Amino acid sequence: MENRTLGQYLYDCLKGEGITEIFGVPGDYNFSLLDTLEEYEGIEFINGRNELNAGYAADAYARVKGISALITTFGVGEMSACNAVAGAYSEDVPLIHIVGSPKSMMQKKKAIAHHTLMDGDFDVFRKVYEHITGYTVVLTPENAAREIPAAIRIAKSKKKPVYMVVAIDLVTKPLLSHSEPLENEAKTNQVALQAAVEQIQKMLEPVKKAALLVDMKTLRYNLGESVQELAERLNVPVASLMQGKSGFDESHPQYIGVYGGAFGSQEVTKTVEEADCIIAVGPVWSDTNTSKETAKLDRLKMVEIQPDSLKVGAASYMNVKAEDILDALKDIGFRQEESVTAIAFPYDTMAGDSSAPLNAASYYPRIQQMLKEDDIVVTETGTFSYGMSQVRLPKGVTYIAQGGWQSIGYATPAAFGACIADKNRRVLLFTGDGSIQLTAQEISSMLENGCKPIIFILNNDGYTIEKFLNVKVDIEKQKYNEIPAWNYTKLPEAFGQEAFTARVETNRELDDAISNAQDLNGEKLCLIELIVKDPMDGPEYMQKMRQYLEKQEN
Amino acid sequence: MENRTLGQYLYDCLKGEGITEIFGVPGDYNFSLLDTLEEYEGIEFINGRNELNAGYAADAYARVKGISALITTFGVGEMSACNAVAGAYSEDVPLIHIVGSPKSMMQKKKAIAHHTLMDGDFDVFRKVYEHITGYTVVLTPENAAREIPAAIRIAKSKKKPVYMVVAIDLVTKPLLSHSEPLENEAKTNQVALQAAVEQIQKMLEPVKKAALLVDMKTLRYNLGESVQELAERLNVPVASLMQGKSGFDESHPQYIGVYGGAFGSQEVTKTVEEADCIIAVGPVWSDTNTSKETAKLDRLKMVEIQPDSLKVGAASYMNVKAEDILDALKDIGFRQEESVTAIAFPYDTMAGDSSAPLNAASYYPRIQQMLKEDDIVVTETGTFSYGMSQVRLPKGVTYIAQGGWQSIGYATPAAFGACIADKNRRVLLFTGDGSIQLTAQEISSMLENGCKPIIFILNNDGYTIEKFLNVKVDIEKQKYNEIPAWNYTKLPEAFGQEAFTARVETNRELDDAISNAQDLNGEKLCLIELIVKDPMDGPEYMQKMRQYLEKQEN
Repeated sequence: MENRTLGQYLYDCLKGEGITEIFGVPGDYNFSLLDTLEEYEGIEFINGRNELNAGYAADAYARVKGISALITTFGVGEMSACNAVAGAYSEDVPLIHIVGSPKSMMQKKKAIAHHTLMDGDFDVFRKVYEHITGYTVVLTPENAAREIPAAIRIAKSKKKPVYMVVAIDLVTKPLLSHSEPLENEAKTNQVALQAAVEQIQKMLEPVKKAALLVDMKTLRYNLGESVQELAERLNVPVASLMQGKSGFDESHPQYIGVYGGAFGSQEVTKTVEEADCIIAVGPVWSDTNTSKETAKLDRLKMVEIQPDSLKVGAASYMNVKAEDILDALKDIGFRQEESVTAIAFPYDTMAGDSSAPLNAASYYPRIQQMLKEDDIVVTETGTFSYGMSQVRLPKGVTYIAQGGWQSIGYATPAAFGACIADKNRRVLLFTGDGSIQLTAQEISSMLENGCKPIIFILNNDGYTIEKFLNVKVDIEKQKYNEIPAWNYTKLPEAFGQEAFTARVETNRELDDAISNAQDLNGEKLCLIELIVKDPMDGPEYMQKMRQYLEKQEN
Repeated sequence: MENRTLGQYLYDCLKGEGITEIFGVPGDYNFSLLDTLEEYEGIEFINGRNELNAGYAADAYARVKGISALITTFGVGEMSACNAVAGAYSEDVPLIHIVGSPKSMMQKKKAIAHHTLMDGDFDVFRKVYEHITGYTVVLTPENAAREIPAAIRIAKSKKKPVYMVVAIDLVTKPLLSHSEPLENEAKTNQVALQAAVEQIQKMLEPVKKAALLVDMKTLRYNLGESVQELAERLNVPVASLMQGKSGFDESHPQYIGVYGGAFGSQEVTKTVEEADCIIAVGPVWSDTNTSKETAKLDRLKMVEIQPDSLKVGAASYMNVKAEDILDALKDIGFRQEESVTAIAFPYDTMAGDSSAPLNAASYYPRIQQMLKEDDIVVTETGTFSYGMSQVRLPKGVTYIAQGGWQSIGYATPAAFGACIADKNRRVLLFTGDGSIQLTAQEISSMLENGCKPIIFILNNDGYTIEKFLNVKVDIEKQKYNEIPAWNYTKLPEAFGQEAFTARVETNRELDDAISNAQDLNGEKLCLIELIVKDPMDGPEYMQKMRQYLEKQEN
């Protein structure tokens, strides 16, 4: 840390966390941050086409690599990224947002500078970010050695975005203090752990059929391996919630599918809801995960493990680390006798004549079949997020979707972020016509950076998911859910680059396009537009959801 | 107001302000707002391709029509629009932002709903907006009759964006109260007005040469006519500041140009700075307007008129309406004897051989020549914002640019908003390659809505303005200021529509393209890409600014 400038030290800390790329958009108040980065060894700056997209890309990068960073400029830049950062908050993603601000002297004299609200207030945007991050700080040479590690620590432990702003002239100033020793990380309260284990033991005594539920925080806190070991010891069926998809190896014989209450596979629902005891790891009880509250889960029969606490029936135990309780449960003495009954997955069997037009029943099995081990699958909110949740993933697949925040437009930049995060894994993007129009320019960033994902665009002529959700008004009256009919396959050309593109309407055409994309992978970006003629075609999950909403309205 | 629902009453109030279109993006929490709007006579919903763009479009709409509205959905939608709304705040634009939120019952029970931060807090996004709007309110059937008019009143009087959020189930509920009588609008304090007039009279006694400076608030508060009358009575030269461009008829014989300190036309600078007295109407003393503080204006020789107050030298007078002091000054007895000396404008004379490659010196005169009375000219931040400021506008032209907030990407959606705001006026968009990539999809919205602007895209291979501003580091080292090379003229095709496009490199090609666009206007959207080979080519204003910044650094 000797002789390091504030900017260099910032990058030292980020590099120490494994960050090798930082996303962002340049602006005249972040020049010194970017100039320092250009000279810095080991971290590359990756331009987004705009700040929201750069933020989305950083979000996905963190889901692949554990943590990420974003650089924007004061006011205009950071205010464009609010959605991405709030989304990272909602979805427990540690994203370090770094903002370059005007010269200290301008700030001190409350100058009426461009990119401000014209009132001399240089702290207002940090105040905005207080509401949507885990921590905010104004960096100075005096506090940076303490505050940068503190902010990163909070991002990592709370899995929340954090915000640091630094004046353009201070980035190149030497650090003025040394960092303080790290606070001791909180440890498990052994008394609470022991009491919880005893209660769980008693709870399990009469249990014949138990089940394990895996959710979002299993992914974010890297509990996957521990959970798998536990599942194998207990020999119980494992389901995931929507937001926890890929938190458990879906090729594992004990894995039965995504639990979706009244809307998902009813065999999975039966298995989960009829269990005498459910061990839920890292659940979020959102409307998405509870399938509009149709999930029937008895909390009194549940062990709910969270990162730093757990609940056993009605009792709460604080300050117990998930890792420790998972470890303890392995030796709790419970093992289900019967082996887990295999359940067929909705899209295991190929369907649809090869000359027939595409529909959900026919394209999902084809998608399931084409997926490979260790793929990164990025799914947009909308039709695809419901259908893809029911697709069985091969081993090692990372599944990226905003199950809770559900911001349409997220997935395209997220796929870009995933490509940058791991250049050796194949990335597949599943998005819709409605969503891609929000953030389409990030296909240009992929092409510019040599990324070669396989992109599926479901063209069903409008915001189909919205039509499904608005059961109050006839669809013909929902003019606002119509969108312009783009030539999606012409986008790469407009972005000045070559790509493999295909526009498919029948199952055979899709098969051919997939086969081409499989062959070409690693050589070209592939963009496949799926034309679905019935705008109300959709996966069974969505159909059931609509029926449920219709019943509720009447 | 009898028997009106909350939603209907909201639209009644907006229609009463002259709003005939509302911008936005649908989402499942704003369905009832949009369904009510679909049934409502007299206001049309205009889809943006994303919320930031819809916000920008609404901003420009308000600049043309006086006020505008935007509808977004809870969380994801509104958080995407922060930049546009903060920009409206910075630039004094009255924009009504309406957000649809989850059902009241969900909010009451603090449900973990999608599009939230997953913590049961349904007020957090309103709190974000408190920082970047003039007013925020949670609408209910009980308060709507009072709060909606109050919010609109604040937007109109303060010229700031305001924020209203309403739960999806309350939009269709009948209003439960009647509105209260309007508060009396503040009136001018006559004593203060009289004192100010006397002081100004004394100040003017020895004055030989006065000048009038027009700025942003002249535009926002519709003071243009008053100011012109005053200028004619006083017979003084009139200049505008950068942010006030088009606030004064630029074809008027007394108009001398934009005052740009050390960077603008030096004849204008001399006339303004050598005046014995300056009357400034609605100025904002930003770094943009003061040309990085190179403006040399003696405040002690100035009468500074603001919407509700004024300064005469060192003295302030509060509660004096601009209209009233402008009126009073007309009869103050001062009239300059000499008629105003005409000053040549930088781009009055055509330059550049017809076979020569395009450069700033050659394309700005051509742009000036092609402009017509009553055009709406939308200019992006960057090279064009500096160059276009020096172009003389015909009578009746509305000039739209973010002089203070300067968010790149603004201008394309803003041009869309301007087209919607006035279908009878010609709209011209001047943007750059760096900027258009942020928000290019709004060209699709233009095409979808039958808008036919003439779009100029200056392709100078990167963020040229940023290269000009970062004088600390060699341009070759600023890799972050590079952007992908798009085929801009292919965009309309990718967006599924026809347009006239041209890619021009020489003056003759530009002349031909302009001639075609002039002929086609009203028939097709026209997109002209200007290729400029030297990435550091730019208007003289920018060259001078860079020289100044270089000097400052050394």
